[in-house]
Amino acid sequence: MKQDKIRVAVFGYGNIGKAVEEAVSVTNDMTLAGIFHHQEMESLLAAQPDIVLLGVPSREVPQAAQQLLEKGLNTVDSFDIHTRIPEVHRCLNEAALAHKAVSILSAGWDPGSDSVVRALMQALMPQGITYTDFGPGRSMGHTVAAKHIEGVKDALSMTIPLGTGIHRRMVYVEIEKGCSYNDVRDAILKDDYFAHDETHVIEVDNVKALNNVAHGVHLSRNGVSGKTHNQRIEMTMSIDNPALTGQIMVAAARAAMRMAQRQQFGCYTMIELAPVDLLEGNKEEWIQRLV
Amino acid sequence: MKQDKIRVAVFGYGNIGKAVEEAVSVTNDMTLAGIFHHQEMESLLAAQPDIVLLGVPSREVPQAAQQLLEKGLNTVDSFDIHTRIPEVHRCLNEAALAHKAVSILSAGWDPGSDSVVRALMQALMPQGITYTDFGPGRSMGHTVAAKHIEGVKDALSMTIPLGTGIHRRMVYVEIEKGCSYNDVRDAILKDDYFAHDETHVIEVDNVKALNNVAHGVHLSRNGVSGKTHNQRIEMTMSIDNPALTGQIMVAAARAAMRMAQRQQFGCYTMIELAPVDLLEGNKEEWIQRLV
Repeated sequence: MKQDKIRVAVFGYGNIGKAVEEAVSVTNDMTLAGIFHHQEMESLLAAQPDIVLLGVPSREVPQAAQQLLEKGLNTVDSFDIHTRIPEVHRCLNEAALAHKAVSILSAGWDPGSDSVVRALMQALMPQGITYTDFGPGRSMGHTVAAKHIEGVKDALSMTIPLGTGIHRRMVYVEIEKGCSYNDVRDAILKDDYFAHDETHVIEVDNVKALNNVAHGVHLSRNGVSGKTHNQRIEMTMSIDNPALTGQIMVAAARAAMRMAQRQQFGCYTMIELAPVDLLEGNKEEWIQRLV
Repeated sequence: MKQDKIRVAVFGYGNIGKAVEEAVSVTNDMTLAGIFHHQEMESLLAAQPDIVLLGVPSREVPQAAQQLLEKGLNTVDSFDIHTRIPEVHRCLNEAALAHKAVSILSAGWDPGSDSVVRALMQALMPQGITYTDFGPGRSMGHTVAAKHIEGVKDALSMTIPLGTGIHRRMVYVEIEKGCSYNDVRDAILKDDYFAHDETHVIEVDNVKALNNVAHGVHLSRNGVSGKTHNQRIEMTMSIDNPALTGQIMVAAARAAMRMAQRQQFGCYTMIELAPVDLLEGNKEEWIQRLV
């Protein structure tokens, strides 16, 4: 007997929503129950999906996920405000348990698959330091902060890894007519987003011409296994940012459905998921191929 | 209330058993219930450990694990005969379910943590090729095979990665008095362990002087996330081999005890475990620190 496909709804249709749509379209075990814009919560509920993948901005995720869980719908998000994750985890866990649903929180690449790699590094070498070096790639948060500076018409903030978790900010700005580059530069350098890092502000004619969704990360740990020092491990990625995020959310949706089927209701981050649950198809075949 | 420590027994006391002993000694949540040599199964059972970590040779693991599971004892091994893992997984799963125990199979670095990385790479980029390049480091299997060749007094086979999963074998041999290097070399090159790889046989005076438990691995995948190609990820390790294996077995023992506490009995490979379960201490704190 062939199992029914997982009916996936996409809520929010920006970069991430589009990437989720693409990632669902190349699976064999999922089908789209619909794509819903922000204000279309009612139509979403009417579509009765098995699971909702949230493509709304991070700050709106906790409320949207809570609302969906309270309707008994499973959710996946790529919530990326690191400092708020423990609190959101607790809230969504309560809602998920109360309504017998599964919620996967922060299923992107960082937080997300990088978190899994950090957990694995920690398990292999419990004593030591893990460094996460981002980039080169666009920082959404810093780009938005730069765009808000007076006199900035458009901006792009690139994150450049300098090693040991230290980053350089390369900020490309288009200046509003009649405004001064020097004023803009000084305001950016004083902004809390930039004041703590080496920051370079560069005036350009056309920020759009620089746009590129590529990103990267390098995770490294030199640690101790048992009593043996100098155990070294590193991981490097160079990726299309939204494509990877969409793919991870789709993989997490599969894991969520499996958790729900086993009645393991609640909210989970990716370090709480068995990696094999992320994969399409038969567990036994993956054990044969991957272990 | 402070939780009781996990009482760990070590069964088999070679390189791995010793590394497990060291790794247990630096934990805060485990204590040694005893170290037992091969023939001391009865004393092991009398010690009533919570879990047994198997340091016996791989070919003896399935029977020993089965025997322990049938006594209701949880087990961890680092069984590394890749081709037999699915079959052993099924057998130990049956035994574990029947006796309400948990067995963690193949908890080393390959199979083991590399398997987790391969599963993660597969989830992030479902289409593509993953290469596992081992070394430089000593191959146990090839070393043993070389030692069995007539005329070989002692041998060491090093695995050298050539990329895309292709390896060179550097075989260092001490020749028995009265035997010929040429005969030994020809026999090694014809042996099934070596016939399929580029192999160099080098005569040395003292194999022991070359000994080094260092090993390494490079995992890489260039794949497709959704419909986006050229997504690149790689992982590199350079490690003390037994120290890492012992550490991973200890982390897996912790996960096993957590699965047992949740009554999730059965046999699991590392791709079936939540990474956070491998870590000492509180889950919420790890979510805050790692996610």
